[in-house]
Amino acid sequence: MALTQYDLAGADPNRRFSPYCWRIRLAITHKGLPVETIPWRFTDKEMIAFSGQERVPVLVDDGKALAGSWTIANYLEQKYPDGRSLFDGQVGVALTRFIESWTDTILQPNLMPLILVDVFAHLHEKDRAYFRTSRERRLGVTLEAACADRETRVNVLRQNLEPLRTTLKMQSFLGGEAPNYADYIVFGAFMLARSTSPFKLLEKDDPVSLWRSRMLDRFEVARIAPGYDS
Amino acid sequence: MALTQYDLAGADPNRRFSPYCWRIRLAITHKGLPVETIPWRFTDKEMIAFSGQERVPVLVDDGKALAGSWTIANYLEQKYPDGRSLFDGQVGVALTRFIESWTDTILQPNLMPLILVDVFAHLHEKDRAYFRTSRERRLGVTLEAACADRETRVNVLRQNLEPLRTTLKMQSFLGGEAPNYADYIVFGAFMLARSTSPFKLLEKDDPVSLWRSRMLDRFEVARIAPGYDS
Repeated sequence: MALTQYDLAGADPNRRFSPYCWRIRLAITHKGLPVETIPWRFTDKEMIAFSGQERVPVLVDDGKALAGSWTIANYLEQKYPDGRSLFDGQVGVALTRFIESWTDTILQPNLMPLILVDVFAHLHEKDRAYFRTSRERRLGVTLEAACADRETRVNVLRQNLEPLRTTLKMQSFLGGEAPNYADYIVFGAFMLARSTSPFKLLEKDDPVSLWRSRMLDRFEVARIAPGYDS
Repeated sequence: MALTQYDLAGADPNRRFSPYCWRIRLAITHKGLPVETIPWRFTDKEMIAFSGQERVPVLVDDGKALAGSWTIANYLEQKYPDGRSLFDGQVGVALTRFIESWTDTILQPNLMPLILVDVFAHLHEKDRAYFRTSRERRLGVTLEAACADRETRVNVLRQNLEPLRTTLKMQSFLGGEAPNYADYIVFGAFMLARSTSPFKLLEKDDPVSLWRSRMLDRFEVARIAPGYDS
């Protein structure tokens, strides 16, 4: 038994920058499972057509294909109950949904525009036209325009981090004394930034920054991945 | 054994509008415990001086005084483990901290300015000067000025509710199939509004509005409390 994860990569196949793929990569690490990761680019639709999906993460376990980070995380929890729990039961699953929703609707939409030009710079040549067109249509401005005032707009992100900051002043991880899937969801967004952008998102003494360092200390796979220490 | 809760009240002693007191009132109901509530006003500092605190909620259990909603909720969970759990274990406690932080730093600060004039109108005469002075100092404007553009600013609140909305599209309660302390934290803010203000916060078909109705259906104590069905 070995897991295979299709994982979004840049021009450098070792540069992995999907926040959703990072959620799963760390969930697999949390469970102590071996995994082979396959670099995948946005335009490699046919490579994962077998899964019925056009996006990663896609996980293959014993010939069974799974897609979507939430589905995969819950699959791992049920299939491999002997490892440390990712959620700590059904109530934990429910409470984690709020943290996922906050990450998807507040954190990532506020972070992404700050680093778009840097993400673009690291893309494989074949992904560039797709990425520029799809993101510029969504934003209504060019990638460069979206990032132009990032020195100012980073303050909006920092304000939006207040619930995370307040929590991390009171406890080491979102999961409490040890990280769990809630931490991997939020940390995935910071791995997107770390893997692509030298832009400084956080003040050094921000409790969110200190938590990010604790996560990197716990997860060698994240620490050694190609990226920026900003 | 009977619990006594000191509970913020308006001119009408039955009008209870503290979001933090509602968190505890519902936590006690959740545990199926009997409680006597004592109406308390902002200026009744001497009434709760025995607790070492100047704010409610204050809970007295068998002569022991407790203050602060988070402290009280955790006390109830440990002292009365036979009732349904408020958190579902230590990981649940940790995950709930994020929902509390979001409520305290995003939800309540965005909601409160929309209803300040209505809260003021319901205050006991002896609380009015204190309330106006302290809130206007914090906001930097008069209560009336803070509420003047509420028809516009309510949209900012609705945008900020997106993580809650997204979650409640996927499950009935923050705690999953049944409400738990995470729901009481968030619902406390809506009980502040319901008990004081006719101002319409939510569209009728908003998943947040539907959840609020489910909460009222579950908690008669909230449904019958003096307030507005808006």
